Parts: sequence; C-alpha cells; structure tokens
Amino acid sequence: MGPDPAVATVRLAVRRALAELPPGAVVVAACSGGADSLALAGALAFEAPRSERTAAGVTIDHGLQDGSDKRADTVVRTMAGLGLDPSGSIAVTVDGPGGPENAARDARYRALDEAAGRLSAAAVLLGHTRDDQAETVLLGLARGSGARSLAGMPSAFRRPSPGAADQSDQGVLYLRPLLELDRATTRRACDAMGLEPWDDPHNVDPTYARVRVRHDALPVLEKTLGPGVAEALARTARMLRDDADALDELAANAYTDFETQEDGCRVAVLLEGLENLPRAVRTRVLRMAAVRAGSPPGTLAAVHVDAVDRLVTAWSGQRHVDLPGRLRAVRRYGKLLFVPV
Amino acid sequence: MGPDPAVATVRLAVRRALAELPPGAVVVAACSGGADSLALAGALAFEAPRSERTAAGVTIDHGLQDGSDKRADTVVRTMAGLGLDPSGSIAVTVDGPGGPENAARDARYRALDEAAGRLSAAAVLLGHTRDDQAETVLLGLARGSGARSLAGMPSAFRRPSPGAADQSDQGVLYLRPLLELDRATTRRACDAMGLEPWDDPHNVDPTYARVRVRHDALPVLEKTLGPGVAEALARTARMLRDDADALDELAANAYTDFETQEDGCRVAVLLEGLENLPRAVRTRVLRMAAVRAGSPPGTLAAVHVDAVDRLVTAWSGQRHVDLPGRLRAVRRYGKLLFVPV
Repeated sequence: MGPDPAVATVRLAVRRALAELPPGAVVVAACSGGADSLALAGALAFEAPRSERTAAGVTIDHGLQDGSDKRADTVVRTMAGLGLDPSGSIAVTVDGPGGPENAARDARYRALDEAAGRLSAAAVLLGHTRDDQAETVLLGLARGSGARSLAGMPSAFRRPSPGAADQSDQGVLYLRPLLELDRATTRRACDAMGLEPWDDPHNVDPTYARVRVRHDALPVLEKTLGPGVAEALARTARMLRDDADALDELAANAYTDFETQEDGCRVAVLLEGLENLPRAVRTRVLRMAAVRAGSPPGTLAAVHVDAVDRLVTAWSGQRHVDLPGRLRAVRRYGKLLFVPV
Repeated sequence: MGPDPAVATVRLAVRRALAELPPGAVVVAACSGGADSLALAGALAFEAPRSERTAAGVTIDHGLQDGSDKRADTVVRTMAGLGLDPSGSIAVTVDGPGGPENAARDARYRALDEAAGRLSAAAVLLGHTRDDQAETVLLGLARGSGARSLAGMPSAFRRPSPGAADQSDQGVLYLRPLLELDRATTRRACDAMGLEPWDDPHNVDPTYARVRVRHDALPVLEKTLGPGVAEALARTARMLRDDADALDELAANAYTDFETQEDGCRVAVLLEGLENLPRAVRTRVLRMAAVRAGSPPGTLAAVHVDAVDRLVTAWSGQRHVDLPGRLRAVRRYGKLLFVPV
C-alpha cells in the first residue's frame, strides 16, 4: 500500500524541487510548525535521503507571543524527530520599519539567510501554498498597481548571501515547492503523517488584511465566482509574472536607449521616439527614471506616472509634474528632466 | 449657483468625450433607462448643443421581460423629453449562441451598429461605470486566463459597420465616457436632474454571476481590503490592457518571424530562437499558432499552451500535445507542427 494521496502529493512536489539541486546538497526546510511548513518538513525528511541530499530544519522564534520560545522548541523537537539534522531555532528581534508584518518578514529572512550560509545550504524551502498565493494576489489587487503587484510570490528567488565576499556569489536560493498545492492537501498530509500542526493565533486575527482575505474574501469569491478561484488567482499570478518580467526587461533596455545627461538634474530622458514606445513600456521607462531620480518606489503611484506620461504624449504647455521624494518632472528642449525641488 | 456636483461630473466626462469627435457630429446615447445610461443621456442632451454636436438616443427592447415594450416606450419619451432627437427604440430577438447574456449583448450591439449607421453617428456612448469595470475584472479573474481577461472594458472601441462597402470603413465607434465614475455618482446625478432610473430586476437576480459579484463579492472585498477596491480594480484593468496590447503586438511580430511552411500541417513554427523569447511573448506566439491552426480560442486554455511550451523549452521526447479542435502539436526536425488529428 502506498502513502496517503496527500502525502504522496507533497512528497512529489518536494522531490521535483530536490531534483533541481546538486546531489549531496544540504536543503533547509523553514518550518513555523503550521500545517503547510510541517508537511513540507515531513516530505523533505522523507525525500532528501532517497535522493542523496541532506535535510535540515530551521524555525524562527519571532518573540511576538508569550511562550514563542517554547513553541520553537517543540517545532525543533518535531523536526529532529522527522530526521531533519541539524534542526534548530533562531530567535529574532522584530523591530524594523514598515509595520509589524514587514518587520517580522525581514527579520525572518535575514535569519534564514544566515542559517543557509552557516549550513552551506543549496536552498531553503518555504511552505507557501496556492492558497497563500491567491491571498497575495488579492492583497496586490487592492493596491491596484498593475501586473507586478498581481504577480504574487515566485516559486524560486534568491537573496544576497550575508557577508558574500565577491560579486560571483549567487545568494541564497529560496524555493516554494508547494505553490501549486492547496492548504487542504498539506493539512491532510500532516494528519496522515501523524504530525500535529500548530495553529498560529495570528492566522485568525482579523486585524491582519491577509486573515480577512483568507476568511472573508476568498470564501465569498468561491461562492460568487465558483470553486477554483484560488487556482485561477494562482494561474493569473504566474502569467502576469511572465508579463511583468518581459515588459520590465524591455523597459530596462529602452531606458538605456533614452537616458541622457543634463546639468542640474538627477535624471534626463530624451523625448524623441519616446512617444512611439508602447504605453506599457513607456510608463515603465518613466517610472524607472523617476525612481532613479530618487522618488520612493513605494510612494510613486500610477497616477504620478500617468501625469509624467502626459508631459510626453499630451503636452499642451504643462509646466511640470511634482513627484514624491521632493522631485519634479519638467519638459525642456527635447528632454524630460527630473529635478530636485 | 452651478449644477449639482454629480451632474457636473457626468457632464464633464461627456464633454471630454465629445471634444474628441468632429464638430457637427451626431452622437448617440445608448440608454437602458437604468441610472448609469440615464445620467449619460441627460448629460449628452445638455452638452451636445453647447459643443455643436447633435444628440440622439436609442434604447433596446430585448423582449426578455413582460412589458419590455412599454418600458422601452417610457425610455424613449424620457430621452425625447431631455431633447435627444431623434429618440427611438429597437426591438431585438435574443436567440444567439453562448448563453442568454452573450446572446442579448450580441443582439444589442448589432442593433446599435445599425442605428449608428442609419444616423451616420460619429459615436455611440455607453453608460458603463467604474463599478461595472470592477465587476468585469473580477469575472475575468475567475477565468484565470491572464492579462487580457483582467483588462476589463476599453474606454473606446470600434465594431465593423453593418454593410460597410469598403476596407477603409473604420466601423462604428463606441465610447464609455463614465468609465472613471462610480455608480453612486450617476444615481445622484439622476436625482439631481429629476430623472427616475429604472431598476432592471435582472440586476438583482443572483442567477447572474455579475449580480453575485456586485452584491456579494465587491462589498466583501471593500470590507476586507478597504474602500477603493473598485477604483483599484479599474486601474488594474487599464494597466493590464496596456500590458496585453504591448505583448500581443510583440507576439504578432514574432509570429511572422517564426512562421514557416510544412506539408500536411496547418501551421508550422521554426524552433530555432523560439526558446530565447521571453516566456510571456513565446506563450502568446504558441497560442496564436494553435488558434490559427483551428483551436477554438475560448477552449484553448493556459494549461494547453503550457504543454506546447514544454515541447519547445523542456523537450525530453514528448511525442505530442493534443489540443482542443482536433489538433495536435508535434515537434519534428527543428519545427513545431500543428496537425489535424
């Protein structure tokens, strides 16, 4: 008799991720103790020795809840019991900028970067599922800032290694092998593997937008639009990521064609021919120019870029456009200038 | 004292649309009698004579509800009372393919095309608002078929003129001047203009997905993600439309570069270099090839295109990929062939 179908599904996803890594590699599961990452840890413990990789486990103690240190110890014992070796916890201090969620994420990734470096790991596996992806897309939809904000989480990405000695360092590789699976599968897999997931009370705290999306928005969308909404959102994310990648690359190339020099301004762009670029590329070029000139990317909105675009395509004597970051876009003698105010 | 702010907003939107049309032009408001198109008709009646355009009005009697002919008469009287001249109704028969909503839309547009032709109208104005746009985006999200399905409704489009004699005919121009306004504004404008909108019972019938999106999904999204969701969705639509336009054009150009000939197959594409296209462009090229070879665009899904893409980028001896429309994609001697099954 084979394993439970849910367990088989999670293992297969992990096996495919391992196949992309060099034989003998150390692979780290990042495990919160929740159902997703616990199923991931269980599958990694099973698959790694069978494919001549070494499985390790790390849990992060964010120190945000009473008893979080004891929780972390429990997760470490569970990971060790699964055979992840080494298994350990890292306590972090969450006090960075950008709100508690961003600060916790930053602290977590920094700790994982360091753990990966210490273990010379080929990759860190993260337990995000298709449901997480759907939530991320909906949260991005609320920002209304285009393809990139709807592109969700990538299945693979790199972060700079801490203390990388040279440019050739590729950074720490992160993989999300469960991104095509749903949360119900990871929970069933935990049940079948006899693993008891921890339900983080933050996951039902409606002060978090993500929690409201999970418990209110997605169920209603499933009801109004039909089942399969999470899958459709995840598929959308994948396609829009491809789109955003292609258009960002085109824009980066166009930017180097149009960038020029001008005294007294931070960035200057030639106007000739700019108007003939497709709007999707042109607005990206203008956004790049504004960001390079010092406009904060998080504050520079579509409405600002649109106003700059009208300087290019619908100029009827507008004097300038003010941008976040004490910056001003001005049209002058065949150039678009970004000058400090 | 100026007009009510809502009235001023609707009028300004219509005035801007008229400014794009030639002086002396006949402009037709398509009016169902609902708040959006009634506000549109009222604003057109006010603005057209002030900008030397002629305002006309058309309502469509779909014959789907008892007394729809009387309803149409009432709308015609209202439009005539506003000063739209001529004002008239057209009765259509809704029996086309693709479900009742599609059939009704097809019949409606055909009737509007003909009315525009008869009146030699420069444009037909449609009353869709930002709320309609948000609903359209959410309905597209459920399809999960990428940027184009999230691109919503364009603010301007053309349809072929009925009985156009030559290729130079540009078709009937449709404009949606209210696409940046919300539904609350059109309703307030009707109130202020003393116009009584008709509330179509179909608009509260939950058998329609759009009605469920309007009454269930969007309010919950507003609650979970914060106010401004409809605006964010509309902005997303505009940006993704630009993206889709740019990528579709790139793909169309790439298609002509890679298209080739091969006996016994419907479409053939050269493999050399295809792999190096950005994935967003390459998958569009492959989709175009499959559609040109006879695969029905409505049935050909992302999963099919992905499978064809793996023939190109991850070939490990797959024999072929079966596609909707009794079609098969095969890799052979440096070409990708689309052959009938």
